[in-house]
Amino acid sequence: MGGGPGARGSCQIGGNIATNAGGNRVIRYGMMRDQVLGLEAVLADGTVVSSLNKMQKNNAGYDVRQLFIGSEGTLGVITRAVLRLAPLPCATQTALCALDTYDDVVRLLRHAQRKLSGRLSAFEVMWADFYGLVTTRVPGVRAPLRAGHPFYVLLDLQGNDGAQDTPVFEGMLESAMEAGLIQDAAVASSHKEAQSFWQLRDAVAEFPVMWSPNAAYDVSLPIGRIGEFAETLRARLLAVWPHAEPVNFGHVGDSNLHVSVYLPGATDQDFPEHEISDVMYGVVQEFRGSVSAEHGIGFHKKPYLHCSRTPEELALMRLLKRSLDPHNILSPGRVFDLA
Amino acid sequence: MGGGPGARGSCQIGGNIATNAGGNRVIRYGMMRDQVLGLEAVLADGTVVSSLNKMQKNNAGYDVRQLFIGSEGTLGVITRAVLRLAPLPCATQTALCALDTYDDVVRLLRHAQRKLSGRLSAFEVMWADFYGLVTTRVPGVRAPLRAGHPFYVLLDLQGNDGAQDTPVFEGMLESAMEAGLIQDAAVASSHKEAQSFWQLRDAVAEFPVMWSPNAAYDVSLPIGRIGEFAETLRARLLAVWPHAEPVNFGHVGDSNLHVSVYLPGATDQDFPEHEISDVMYGVVQEFRGSVSAEHGIGFHKKPYLHCSRTPEELALMRLLKRSLDPHNILSPGRVFDLA
Repeated sequence: MGGGPGARGSCQIGGNIATNAGGNRVIRYGMMRDQVLGLEAVLADGTVVSSLNKMQKNNAGYDVRQLFIGSEGTLGVITRAVLRLAPLPCATQTALCALDTYDDVVRLLRHAQRKLSGRLSAFEVMWADFYGLVTTRVPGVRAPLRAGHPFYVLLDLQGNDGAQDTPVFEGMLESAMEAGLIQDAAVASSHKEAQSFWQLRDAVAEFPVMWSPNAAYDVSLPIGRIGEFAETLRARLLAVWPHAEPVNFGHVGDSNLHVSVYLPGATDQDFPEHEISDVMYGVVQEFRGSVSAEHGIGFHKKPYLHCSRTPEELALMRLLKRSLDPHNILSPGRVFDLA
Repeated sequence: MGGGPGARGSCQIGGNIATNAGGNRVIRYGMMRDQVLGLEAVLADGTVVSSLNKMQKNNAGYDVRQLFIGSEGTLGVITRAVLRLAPLPCATQTALCALDTYDDVVRLLRHAQRKLSGRLSAFEVMWADFYGLVTTRVPGVRAPLRAGHPFYVLLDLQGNDGAQDTPVFEGMLESAMEAGLIQDAAVASSHKEAQSFWQLRDAVAEFPVMWSPNAAYDVSLPIGRIGEFAETLRARLLAVWPHAEPVNFGHVGDSNLHVSVYLPGATDQDFPEHEISDVMYGVVQEFRGSVSAEHGIGFHKKPYLHCSRTPEELALMRLLKRSLDPHNILSPGRVFDLA
């Protein structure tokens, strides 16, 4: 429930490492990079680099693992890995909150991080448009809180002892409400109810089917500026396409915003995906954000990599690629072009 | 109190990043690598690579930060950094426990990690020899528990609310005692008493003065095997130097063991440091450990880097160095030689 990346039913360990995958639990456990203690990779010349470290700490020379994590197969093929595991939590407290402003969202995040000290395990934000869509248009999704609030936050505490954790979680919500951070809240009283809260967030899987064609984005921005980013983006999109419907949601606790842009009436043939991407990544660049928070670059986002990396960073990436794969045989054409 | 690296009074941010520094709180917050969101570095050719990312998640191409963290200034000079901060904990629960076996130490670690879910903030282990030395020979250090137990663990929970945390912490200790994991325990009843517990561990700062000459090591090993490692090392050392006094302690919750080896009667002139290091790193190699957990390689440990890195890993490190610093002008001679 709400665990791991969206592709948790089909993805594989090697792919998770090669793409530095994220998901709903990054706020507690970090990205895939943080789970990898050791790995083995095959270089372009066939050399097998075994770096199957099992220790939490190892400062014996350069940390060569890092080259292969998140480089999308362009510097080596990952063949083995040693992962760090965490104890399975045995009790989860889940709530859905309604908030008035994005500033309140950020204040609630900081409040929950402080009050739950280390146990805040998800902080998913849904803008009003997202909440309205999924509660009225996706079959089987119910609305635990009335629609119309500007922001909804789905958050949980994963711990070891429900009896001890419940008052901590509820105390955090009560003090947030007293401070005026949240306008309304629903606390899940059962595992089944928590699942129904997560159905709201997971309904995003229906978007490509129900609102096709659309363009889906995975950007990151400094947490404090995501609200302003979403407003700016909406204004820029509506200036060009007055009927555009940008829908915002994401792992805001980790600085990660997902945006899905739908144009009513557009068809697969005339959907202006490139033009929408130009607007999107232009605003990302203005806000000094990243064109990919967790999905990576691949082929699709290659033309926009320069929006969030300096020429010097790109030159350094190319230097690494040329040094490790001089004949460009590993995932050629991914992430960036060499020419 | 017990916070950060040993050099917390004098170290600087750039040095912490360049060496990927550790310390007593790694178990909760990770190494320095985990605190760096963005950085700026100057390459050997004078290029300034600004990668001042402020986001928790950024998969826009290669993560070039990683090259400069922990590479000891050999790939670039770090000039700016963006750090991740965590809320300051407002309440700490501290205990000192006595244990019978190293297996119990590992079981207590797992037990505390599970029961304190995310809030275990130090897990420092002192072997009997360490505890005996510091409580009898270092002025001002008192013994909260009697000497003679094989192992002492100093652990704490850092949280937000002492009233809520105290029963969780004491419950964890009680269930550990009921399960036979710990033989005796002292819980600090005040900040001052907690400080006196930490004085035990921090007394290590006196070692170079009180037991000179000695050889000090910073190795890491898979957590489950550290007890066996310490026994093997002691036997190997005593076989050569029957009066050697190896003293074991360290951040065992992070796989990091420190060993200080003293030879009564030896002088600066005849202290066999190289021979002791040969024995030490030979055993580290057998146990597939690392010759440096947190202190790095520098010049001193260069001859032993091959004990914990494969020829392929070393070749890859050299390839990176040659690619980024072809004239070998950045910290030349550190970590490894190029020839």
